[in-house]
Amino acid sequence: MAGNSFGNIFKLTTYGESHGNSIGGILEGCPANLNLNLEAIQKELDRRKPGQSSIVTQRKESDTVEFLSGIFEGKTTGTPIAFQIKNKDQKSKDYSHIKEIYRPSHADFTYDKKYGHRDYRGGGRSSARETACRVVAGAIAKQLLQDIQIIGFVSSVGEISLEQSFEKLDFKSIEENIVRCPDPEMATTMENYIKSIRKEGDTVGGTVTCIIKNVPMGLGEPVFDKLHAQLGKAMLSINAVKGFEYGSGFEGTKMRGSEHNDRFLENEQTQTNFSGGIQGGISNGMDIYFKVAFKPVATLMQKQTTINKDAEKVEMQGKGRHDPCVVPRAVPIVEAMAALVLADFYLLQKINSEKI
Amino acid sequence: MAGNSFGNIFKLTTYGESHGNSIGGILEGCPANLNLNLEAIQKELDRRKPGQSSIVTQRKESDTVEFLSGIFEGKTTGTPIAFQIKNKDQKSKDYSHIKEIYRPSHADFTYDKKYGHRDYRGGGRSSARETACRVVAGAIAKQLLQDIQIIGFVSSVGEISLEQSFEKLDFKSIEENIVRCPDPEMATTMENYIKSIRKEGDTVGGTVTCIIKNVPMGLGEPVFDKLHAQLGKAMLSINAVKGFEYGSGFEGTKMRGSEHNDRFLENEQTQTNFSGGIQGGISNGMDIYFKVAFKPVATLMQKQTTINKDAEKVEMQGKGRHDPCVVPRAVPIVEAMAALVLADFYLLQKINSEKI
Amino acid sequence: MAGNSFGNIFKLTTYGESHGNSIGGILEGCPANLNLNLEAIQKELDRRKPGQSSIVTQRKESDTVEFLSGIFEGKTTGTPIAFQIKNKDQKSKDYSHIKEIYRPSHADFTYDKKYGHRDYRGGGRSSARETACRVVAGAIAKQLLQDIQIIGFVSSVGEISLEQSFEKLDFKSIEENIVRCPDPEMATTMENYIKSIRKEGDTVGGTVTCIIKNVPMGLGEPVFDKLHAQLGKAMLSINAVKGFEYGSGFEGTKMRGSEHNDRFLENEQTQTNFSGGIQGGISNGMDIYFKVAFKPVATLMQKQTTINKDAEKVEMQGKGRHDPCVVPRAVPIVEAMAALVLADFYLLQKINSEKI
Amino acid sequence: MAGNSFGNIFKLTTYGESHGNSIGGILEGCPANLNLNLEAIQKELDRRKPGQSSIVTQRKESDTVEFLSGIFEGKTTGTPIAFQIKNKDQKSKDYSHIKEIYRPSHADFTYDKKYGHRDYRGGGRSSARETACRVVAGAIAKQLLQDIQIIGFVSSVGEISLEQSFEKLDFKSIEENIVRCPDPEMATTMENYIKSIRKEGDTVGGTVTCIIKNVPMGLGEPVFDKLHAQLGKAMLSINAVKGFEYGSGFEGTKMRGSEHNDRFLENEQTQTNFSGGIQGGISNGMDIYFKVAFKPVATLMQKQTTINKDAEKVEMQGKGRHDPCVVPRAVPIVEAMAALVLADFYLLQKINSEKI
Repeated sequence: MAGNSFGNIFKLTTYGESHGNSIGGILEGCPANLNLNLEAIQKELDRRKPGQSSIVTQRKESDTVEFLSGIFEGKTTGTPIAFQIKNKDQKSKDYSHIKEIYRPSHADFTYDKKYGHRDYRGGGRSSARETACRVVAGAIAKQLLQDIQIIGFVSSVGEISLEQSFEKLDFKSIEENIVRCPDPEMATTMENYIKSIRKEGDTVGGTVTCIIKNVPMGLGEPVFDKLHAQLGKAMLSINAVKGFEYGSGFEGTKMRGSEHNDRFLENEQTQTNFSGGIQGGISNGMDIYFKVAFKPVATLMQKQTTINKDAEKVEMQGKGRHDPCVVPRAVPIVEAMAALVLADFYLLQKINSEKI
Repeated sequence: MAGNSFGNIFKLTTYGESHGNSIGGILEGCPANLNLNLEAIQKELDRRKPGQSSIVTQRKESDTVEFLSGIFEGKTTGTPIAFQIKNKDQKSKDYSHIKEIYRPSHADFTYDKKYGHRDYRGGGRSSARETACRVVAGAIAKQLLQDIQIIGFVSSVGEISLEQSFEKLDFKSIEENIVRCPDPEMATTMENYIKSIRKEGDTVGGTVTCIIKNVPMGLGEPVFDKLHAQLGKAMLSINAVKGFEYGSGFEGTKMRGSEHNDRFLENEQTQTNFSGGIQGGISNGMDIYFKVAFKPVATLMQKQTTINKDAEKVEMQGKGRHDPCVVPRAVPIVEAMAALVLADFYLLQKINSEKI
Repeated sequence: MAGNSFGNIFKLTTYGESHGNSIGGILEGCPANLNLNLEAIQKELDRRKPGQSSIVTQRKESDTVEFLSGIFEGKTTGTPIAFQIKNKDQKSKDYSHIKEIYRPSHADFTYDKKYGHRDYRGGGRSSARETACRVVAGAIAKQLLQDIQIIGFVSSVGEISLEQSFEKLDFKSIEENIVRCPDPEMATTMENYIKSIRKEGDTVGGTVTCIIKNVPMGLGEPVFDKLHAQLGKAMLSINAVKGFEYGSGFEGTKMRGSEHNDRFLENEQTQTNFSGGIQGGISNGMDIYFKVAFKPVATLMQKQTTINKDAEKVEMQGKGRHDPCVVPRAVPIVEAMAALVLADFYLLQKINSEKI
Repeated sequence: MAGNSFGNIFKLTTYGESHGNSIGGILEGCPANLNLNLEAIQKELDRRKPGQSSIVTQRKESDTVEFLSGIFEGKTTGTPIAFQIKNKDQKSKDYSHIKEIYRPSHADFTYDKKYGHRDYRGGGRSSARETACRVVAGAIAKQLLQDIQIIGFVSSVGEISLEQSFEKLDFKSIEENIVRCPDPEMATTMENYIKSIRKEGDTVGGTVTCIIKNVPMGLGEPVFDKLHAQLGKAMLSINAVKGFEYGSGFEGTKMRGSEHNDRFLENEQTQTNFSGGIQGGISNGMDIYFKVAFKPVATLMQKQTTINKDAEKVEMQGKGRHDPCVVPRAVPIVEAMAALVLADFYLLQKINSEKI
């Protein structure tokens, strides 16, 4: 209701502000007896953490997750898994200059209008720092999903865009460069571009593509909770996201049905996959793929004019530590949200598929 | 859970198959004492109904809505509003030829894999006929929302695309042509194109753009239930939708922060509106705008090869009555879903905004 | 949210007023491929219907249920099962005399205060007529639950109370008398008492006891959704219910732990069953049993003073057709609600119990 | 779904095991701008805490609540309020003797059957320690509810029972004795009885009565979410509860309608209040009152026979620190749950009551 939960059965509720004591969450609905690999969870978190490379924010957070309940002798107990990540490098004084100011294209203005006041330090609840909690829960979801593979990568930075089909990419090289682009040459171009943008105190947008392999047939629910509708909501809930498309996406609107229809083969696969692995909102066993659009980060290291609480014009300049381009760190977040969606439908399908 | 409901407070649950006795729904959470204009509801339904023009399916359905509860002496009572639309022209024999066949890019295959059997007549539950129920509930939502204006229109058919900014369009002309495109010349081009596609027994995709005006500040919830995330889910849940973008969308990923940031003015509006009326998931009072991608309809009046239940190759040819291009009829559905999202957040905000 | 739904996975949403066109509901989450015995459903409805005997209301309703969706070729499809029961004998003129009057101990006053106006005909939405929809859904739940037996009976009428333990009763005789009391002699006493009460234009309360046999171990959820908490809510939501107790109930509060503890035996059963088949909110495989308190019906065929909308004192006399004692007709409703609760937890346990 | 949440809008989700690192929760839906009195919250927690008197468990826990989010400059921000209570005196070795044993009338057996394994230390998640989190959230609810007064007290211990009507009691004396009974003489009798029970290593049950004053008219929802149904569920979800009745309760079933009907007076109050302040599931402005039955605590300081995991007979003797009678500490828990129910309906009514 109040927007802090995601999922129906496999359900995450998060709390926390950018500069509070800690952020964290409660994950409900994880079946009992799952052997949790805690190191693998921390490793996912490390993929998202600030300071990991020269092209991301230099806020210094170890982002160490601590589990508080729901795990006993290494296995899930079926009861809620609570966890927290302490905030350590919250330099709140960095934000005193924006206490009374509405930063352009940030959530400062709307939070104030909605709630009457706000925790202005680092954006408070609206900060993308909250997504660390999603990565923790998503890492547990990945362990539940076992054979299902979820692979995210950066497919564009600004105008620099990876055009080839995902089937031709070498996913192993994704983590070998700091941009998280599977094409090493393109990765270098992107990295250099991000560095030049940063030097100007500016920011730039980009896209993340995600592929999901080995999805069982039958996941997703009819009508309102279609698999792609839930994936879309999941992605659009990530900070800075402006668009989502799956399968043939916006390009597919230009096609004719005779080209676009995916012909079934005798092995129950389809010859083409414009459907993106989903038909009628339900997985058909083919690869799921989708693309997520991220706008340029709103915090600039440049002078901008804006207004304050009294609607007076003021000038401001960004301080603090921010990302020139959000997509490299967004990759694990996109994967985590995809994992949460799949885990939820995977558990739900155990009920629908009941043989009676 | 099972995907048949939408909304938290203002909540619609639908039922029904394409060729069953009726389709219908239960709308909960509509406040008491709302004077309902029943004609206005029927009028919205007429905008979606089959047979309304020469470029849509010729299935003959009056699509007359009948209200069963929740209204007394013309006013809502606060109790659930149930309604039904009888199916009249369900020519089920049209579908006997697909009983054992999985039509390409339809939901036949996935429903069978999910549930073990299916109502194959006209796609059963997966049919877009279900969206008539959304239009009924959306029409009630529009009456609740009063001053908030929701305006949908066709912005492209295949490669034919309306490029100008929505501020320059004359919305009054939308309903004056059968394509529902606000540019009359473009509308004629689109209409002719759809007719030529139909003659070939083929189909084509397109996009619908939607503008929402006079939105109060503060609608939408932080983190997972951002206003645009819920709008995105709503749109992606409509049959044939492949993508959603709002504000600057996918194009915005190519921009720099210094161009993309919306500068606040002293009247609390912004100079530009790349944010699409939403910042941090919450409305800022500017126009909301978004675009929805619809793939080409899967049912062709051409021969296609596919497989049957035994995974044997078979040849099939579409029969029945189908749309060559879905976007003209999709306009009222997009508007209805937008209305449902806004009504839900509008009611929820009455709680958040409580002065204590 | 608005109180019209029950259940999480196996979920019923109802609509309808006592004197509207029809009442009905949508049942979601019933697994696909269940062969439905429609006669058995109607039979349950017949146990609840008015006019079935000389000690219940003489409103003439056939209470015939019609299914609108979710069933194909005799089997559930996994999509929502919608149904309706037409109102036939709604003599609305019987109620014109209470249009402006608040009947004592009815919901007239509170509905008006909550919603600002109300459908006064026969109590509108507050009428127990709505429970017919619960009986339909409960009858489907019973078919899903297969071996689990749910047996309700009248355990007291006014001061006349069945004192022996349920293990000593012959459940087969419950349906052999119009009171639905398993002790034939007691049944006659109760019947005569109800008739004498009716002659005086008065009403009387009573209790219904319910036994559930063959419950698998492990149903129910920890903390807030304990099996007995959900059963309690289910029962308390039935019109006229004032109390609920399970296992040792209120009497158990007088006992000592050394008497009350149920000793485990080597067959994993317990020697006594003060726990009522539930420990820590989760079924332990022993018989579940509980008792539900029903107040005397508020509508009397006697003169009463009350107030009208303007808070003026007025005199009124009940007209229409009412039950002198509600418990005989309440038995199938209690069973239906128990079935809904169990079906929901039964499906949910398929997820928790997952072997990984 | 998984039973860890309570409420729809004002919603609490808890986590934690008796002997884990901490217990805690996330409270969503609390409106922004509420000035929170943190001392008043801690004070409620102190009323529940162990070791507070000679008749309760001597586990030493300071039960200090720490808030992690959702409060800024002393006021709620509208974002989730997370809190935790560290476990300090968890003597886990006290429980090694029950690792393989199913204690009679505990949740050991059912948790193992449900989940396949369990955290056996102090009952893990099934421990009543979890209720401390409810008291924290309930204390916030009380501050939201302002003028609504919620008053719980012990109305019986074993056979010793307070018979007079609540109108005649002096609520001020409740907190003046360690039993929390408003009749000082009766309190002494109860205290002595509990002490004698404890000396025998035994336990005893009891009841808590709760009165709610100054409730606005119109709270509660029709049909399934009746105010008393939700109160009943809330109470039945508290550890050791076996029954719930409101208004005339079980005694009311023996009455006739002509005695039981509450006659409306010209001030819109009723002459009697057998309805318990609730008609048709909705508050009518009169005092709400209800009674909750608590069974005797299952942990005895006596020898008992039971079975182990291999279904072999074993002998066990309670160790650790337990309550001889749970009702004195249950009073603040009952009040907290009542506050949660009322806060939820109070916020929801802001929507229903909308003047249009």
